[in-house]
Amino acid sequence: MPAAPSVSYSITIRLELPARPTAVSELTSVIESSHGIVTALDVTASGAGRVRVDLTCATRGTDHAEEIVEALRGLEGVAMGRVSDRTFLAHLGGKISVEPKMPIRTRDDLSLIYTPGVARVCEAIAKEPADARRLTIKRNTVAVVTDGTAVLGLGDIGPLAALPVMEGKAALFKRFGGIDAFPICLDTTDTEEIIAAVKAIAPVFAGINLEDIAAPRCFEIEDRLRDELDIPVFHDDQHGTAIVCTAALLNALKVVGKQLPDVRVVMSGAGAAGTAVLKLLLAAGARDVVVADIDGVVHTGRPDLHPSSRWTAENTNPRGLTGTLVEALADADVFIGVSAPNILTGDDIATMASDAVVFALANPTPEVDPTAAAEHAAVVATGRSDFANQINNVLAFPGVFRGLLDAQSHSIDEAMLLAAARALAAVVADDELNAAYIVPSVFHPDVATVVAEAVEKAARAAGAGETPSPVVAATEAAAGTDAGSSAGAVAGVL
Amino acid sequence: MPAAPSVSYSITIRLELPARPTAVSELTSVIESSHGIVTALDVTASGAGRVRVDLTCATRGTDHAEEIVEALRGLEGVAMGRVSDRTFLAHLGGKISVEPKMPIRTRDDLSLIYTPGVARVCEAIAKEPADARRLTIKRNTVAVVTDGTAVLGLGDIGPLAALPVMEGKAALFKRFGGIDAFPICLDTTDTEEIIAAVKAIAPVFAGINLEDIAAPRCFEIEDRLRDELDIPVFHDDQHGTAIVCTAALLNALKVVGKQLPDVRVVMSGAGAAGTAVLKLLLAAGARDVVVADIDGVVHTGRPDLHPSSRWTAENTNPRGLTGTLVEALADADVFIGVSAPNILTGDDIATMASDAVVFALANPTPEVDPTAAAEHAAVVATGRSDFANQINNVLAFPGVFRGLLDAQSHSIDEAMLLAAARALAAVVADDELNAAYIVPSVFHPDVATVVAEAVEKAARAAGAGETPSPVVAATEAAAGTDAGSSAGAVAGVL
Repeated sequence: MPAAPSVSYSITIRLELPARPTAVSELTSVIESSHGIVTALDVTASGAGRVRVDLTCATRGTDHAEEIVEALRGLEGVAMGRVSDRTFLAHLGGKISVEPKMPIRTRDDLSLIYTPGVARVCEAIAKEPADARRLTIKRNTVAVVTDGTAVLGLGDIGPLAALPVMEGKAALFKRFGGIDAFPICLDTTDTEEIIAAVKAIAPVFAGINLEDIAAPRCFEIEDRLRDELDIPVFHDDQHGTAIVCTAALLNALKVVGKQLPDVRVVMSGAGAAGTAVLKLLLAAGARDVVVADIDGVVHTGRPDLHPSSRWTAENTNPRGLTGTLVEALADADVFIGVSAPNILTGDDIATMASDAVVFALANPTPEVDPTAAAEHAAVVATGRSDFANQINNVLAFPGVFRGLLDAQSHSIDEAMLLAAARALAAVVADDELNAAYIVPSVFHPDVATVVAEAVEKAARAAGAGETPSPVVAATEAAAGTDAGSSAGAVAGVL
Repeated sequence: MPAAPSVSYSITIRLELPARPTAVSELTSVIESSHGIVTALDVTASGAGRVRVDLTCATRGTDHAEEIVEALRGLEGVAMGRVSDRTFLAHLGGKISVEPKMPIRTRDDLSLIYTPGVARVCEAIAKEPADARRLTIKRNTVAVVTDGTAVLGLGDIGPLAALPVMEGKAALFKRFGGIDAFPICLDTTDTEEIIAAVKAIAPVFAGINLEDIAAPRCFEIEDRLRDELDIPVFHDDQHGTAIVCTAALLNALKVVGKQLPDVRVVMSGAGAAGTAVLKLLLAAGARDVVVADIDGVVHTGRPDLHPSSRWTAENTNPRGLTGTLVEALADADVFIGVSAPNILTGDDIATMASDAVVFALANPTPEVDPTAAAEHAAVVATGRSDFANQINNVLAFPGVFRGLLDAQSHSIDEAMLLAAARALAAVVADDELNAAYIVPSVFHPDVATVVAEAVEKAARAAGAGETPSPVVAATEAAAGTDAGSSAGAVAGVL
């Protein structure tokens, strides 16, 4: 539950009460003494001696909202009406729609976009499949794919209950990346069935965003789809987190005047996100990283290492540490937690090197209380929106896919992820950079564009991109403003 | 190729020529003498002695367009520029987009539609799955599913080349039915894999529209999905055609003053569409139907009948006819062709009973030349837009799905299809009805609404519809204008 009243637990209450001079002030003081925050108050009707008021207030959660309603019920002469929930209102009917791009007013319009005209476009694509990226929505369309097994903090709630998250993600893809994304919630948790379903629907899409699929299943699904599809496959829980975390660390180290290759990094968590963060940090130049899981520090001498931890043991911990997370933390420059709530105290952070950097990303409750950590660390970041330095994937995925689509990339690799991280870090200018601003706001106008340009460049360097057929080149040119002559286009179109 | 120049083969030509007084008239007369139709002419630039003209004209097809371009090339002093194709321009970048329903301007907006607010909506659906129809896009979303094996007249062009048709269909769903439809083009032609993929993606959708899937595969796919899914499955090539064809026949028989139970009907074609038309005609009350396939009249005595024709043999042909289609046509009141081009002549139609009704639906070339047929039949209909009485599925599927979604139907049955056909027929008022107007225009404002109401009524009669949970009931009520008090809503929301 949020520490403070939040708009995501905001309610609107309709009530009536006697039109005494103190009527409105009585309402607001009841809300205030109940620790709610009034965000709107409208007298929507007034009659003989009574007024009707619509009152909207932010609460700390459903229990708190109920307390507030009960408190209002106690007012003399009040008649409580409907109480509605702004969050549910915002989701009513779903959050995205599918819209035609052009009006369909006449039979001519129908003949152009449907039969008989459409047949020639189909034939052109049958002849030159690459043209589908120009003549269909494939050009700008991404699938947001989940099986509903690891949704937010909620866990395995199934594909139907996961849909509100995937719709929200699709809305964010359009808002921040200009990308048409559609939710695919799969009614199976079988790895092979998930792979088969995604491969089956792939023709319509130019990219796959895997979302909230439980580990270790998500690893094989991603690896297999990357091998077997000709479009990029991105697991946001892993790679989105890794990009934003790496960008934030690059900037945090600037703030404390340290270099990534020189610092000692301790990580808590060897799951999907943790492993992705680890790999991108190593690619970015980190050399001394120690990873701890629930059994303590991961090292090659540990018995019964999970296969994925085996790779970690062999590629980290150069000083051969053993023991607990807390022991490993001593003299570390950086702590990155992608694990569990409240596993560290301020005193543990105090054992770190001077000018320590602490990323406590467990959500909603971080690995260490951010306020306590801030007493001993120079820079603190969390996954929460109510503290400074939120590590938020919305900073990464819209720009990453924008760049992949613009490059018509058939794949995504570590160089592209690293390019995204460095570009994101660079959005914060040196004169803006400080301990409370190591990542830009998700509403910073440059974020998606800058990340997209970096990813597109990296993708083209990796050999992405296709040449359109003459028919499409002519059409694209005609759609543009260029007025030049082109006999080739004539031959191509006719 | 269309009989007349068509906008779906429209080209725009940019050219320059000497600015002599006759410049423009020379251009238009070249187009006219080449039998093109000028639809737009703009002088887009004028210089020292020369003018630049953008000329748009409808042609009969790509060869004809090339002839026209060559003819223009022959003009004295002309410099041909780019020739572009209006149809390809209309498809550039695809024909539908995915849009957020609400603006995302502030962190509060994010908290409402994404984390943390969305978590509570997910939890509500996990607790009460039926609420997904209120709180997500499932309420209004249909999948347009194809494997690309039977696309228009093009046949097996594959899923990618089929996408322009499915996008167009999705655009029509929104334009005529207010429905959010999304194209699913499957990269498999294996019946079991298609069934598995559609079942896997079903959670997001409230209906499945199967499209352009080859027979006989399409029959098993539809049957299995209807058994194994809890949302309606509609194969437009079958049921859409059956609805419009039945509606048209009901009105055609009114025109000639005959009753469906009394007339002799001869059908050509025992494929997917033909079988669906047959079944709906029988459900509508037809009693004397004779079906012919490529081997002649279908009767129980015929050896080696295909399993699907076996059903036909046992449920049609009450007078036990044998022989050829042409023989069966003698004294028939109605001919319905859903088969192959040019299999009948005007003389064959002349052998039918007086006031004959002829539906020649093979596209683009009908079973019999409509003009020749009209010399001997009282009513003629085709699948083409350039003759009267076009049997066009756009008259059916938007209203059918609108009604199914509004009823929250878990299935679709013959009673709903028949209700749709009767409602569609009734859109043509008795004083409008005549031999050239037995079906309304696809742009008739009432079509989708009237069909939707009939289908919703039939679906509710079949037991469709669900009651929302208190939390959603309260939210829907709050979203409405009703200002009444609701203690239940209070208890429900909090």
